[in-house]
Amino acid sequence: MLDVCLLGTGGMMPLPNRWLTALMTRFNGSSLLIDCGEGTQITLRQKGWSHHDIDTICFTHYHGDHICGLPGLLLSIGNADRKEPVTLIGPKGLMKVVNSLRVVAPELPFELKYIELNEKREVININGYEIIAFKVNHSVTCYGYTININRAGKFVPEKAKENEVPMKFWNRLQKGETIEEDGRIMTPDMILGEPRKGIKLTYCTDTRPVDIISEEANGADLFICEGMYGTDEFIKKAKEKKHMTFPEAALIAKKAEVKQMWLTHYSPSMINPDDYKESVRKIFPDTVISKDRRSITLSFED
Amino acid sequence: MLDVCLLGTGGMMPLPNRWLTALMTRFNGSSLLIDCGEGTQITLRQKGWSHHDIDTICFTHYHGDHICGLPGLLLSIGNADRKEPVTLIGPKGLMKVVNSLRVVAPELPFELKYIELNEKREVININGYEIIAFKVNHSVTCYGYTININRAGKFVPEKAKENEVPMKFWNRLQKGETIEEDGRIMTPDMILGEPRKGIKLTYCTDTRPVDIISEEANGADLFICEGMYGTDEFIKKAKEKKHMTFPEAALIAKKAEVKQMWLTHYSPSMINPDDYKESVRKIFPDTVISKDRRSITLSFED
Repeated sequence: MLDVCLLGTGGMMPLPNRWLTALMTRFNGSSLLIDCGEGTQITLRQKGWSHHDIDTICFTHYHGDHICGLPGLLLSIGNADRKEPVTLIGPKGLMKVVNSLRVVAPELPFELKYIELNEKREVININGYEIIAFKVNHSVTCYGYTININRAGKFVPEKAKENEVPMKFWNRLQKGETIEEDGRIMTPDMILGEPRKGIKLTYCTDTRPVDIISEEANGADLFICEGMYGTDEFIKKAKEKKHMTFPEAALIAKKAEVKQMWLTHYSPSMINPDDYKESVRKIFPDTVISKDRRSITLSFED
Repeated sequence: MLDVCLLGTGGMMPLPNRWLTALMTRFNGSSLLIDCGEGTQITLRQKGWSHHDIDTICFTHYHGDHICGLPGLLLSIGNADRKEPVTLIGPKGLMKVVNSLRVVAPELPFELKYIELNEKREVININGYEIIAFKVNHSVTCYGYTININRAGKFVPEKAKENEVPMKFWNRLQKGETIEEDGRIMTPDMILGEPRKGIKLTYCTDTRPVDIISEEANGADLFICEGMYGTDEFIKKAKEKKHMTFPEAALIAKKAEVKQMWLTHYSPSMINPDDYKESVRKIFPDTVISKDRRSITLSFED
């Protein structure tokens, strides 16, 4: 099970009653945050989710509305007396940007680890999450993220016996361990069936529509996508600012055949995003015009 | 007339429904901000006051809860297309700290000017405000601020005649100009009576009680003071963290003979500051347990 909460739905600047876009997920005791704008720690507290278990923070890019809340969040996590390291993931320049912002938070009781993204596509396995970062198309280097919770196959005793795996190792192999005994190496696939369908979440803000997004979001259980502008009347501005309109996002969702799409990252000038609900649902019916702190629990099938 | 708004009343970290402590004043078209924690721009917007006219931002010190909101605010002011410079005032290190935080806001459409405080007490005249910065006693270098709106004396025609000031200069002299004609220098005091009582506001957070505070706040129309802890039961913690209790603040207000005191900068662990109202009013009756966005307009006498 993966808990997902869209902490805010605003773009550019925080507004009363509309926090900046950021996502938190919880899986197996380990929380992951994507982006941290000004006020993210407050909306997180409003939701009632703890910042103490945030092990990983991913950044799409380093515009202020996606990272200004980091020093305050780190200070608050520190005040909650966290000792375990926090891993930060983001485009090249991550360490420089974070160290600059940390001028007001130079001492923390936990270690920060850095993973800087340099390739067009990178895969990172951390705390049970498979994170796929893929480069999108914004005015600065920006990445989208797919979070996969992969699921091993079922235990098949016949297969274990067939492969002559001693019963004493079955449990450890089921947990994913690789075991060596007397020079023989035993791997989980020797006792398990085909991997089962896992959970897939794709998150994408601050970009023009590019093919990579529908490719990476393909078949996602949940696709969270920016919609800076409500209609294609704003297409010129969207192109200039390197953002998307609702219809553009809907076309990606349709092409990627995702189960549902949540729109977010609304322009401060968009008073009521719901106004565009019907028109966008004509393109992709399973569109949700998200509000702050919308959450869902995604479960494995069966 | 000086409009005053206490934008938030929290200390240490922003909470839902309690923003971090910051003050905004408006005088004669020029706004001044003291401190800018995470979310200050949002509570300002909730109040309905514009960030566009902020000409001056003073910092008490550089702990995160007093400055983390600066890059976001500067970006928002920039988005509102301000062109006029903004002057920043704060303890030594100001430029270094601000430039570090500006890693996410490197380009702004207006100039930033810096006034770094080095002395125990400094007086700065800017946009009709007389700002007195005075060093207090916190875990890092920290200043309190007095804002004076000074008021010249009344025009006295008899005095102007007595001093043989030509009538054609009366208006300009009343506006504060100094005029030279044929080698003779004429100053406003040659046509004005004794300066009248102005408006005085003193603002002080993040400090232990020290004599300088009551000296600088003496006779203030409004004294805004930190009260991190409600009662003297917390005196040990207050001393350790270099903060004050409500009773300590009240003793300063009493000694300084201010007209009224507003408490602020409550610890996140203080659920209901009002619980301590009666006890603190026994020491200083004109104490207000402030809530976010409390405001007042201070007027000249008569």
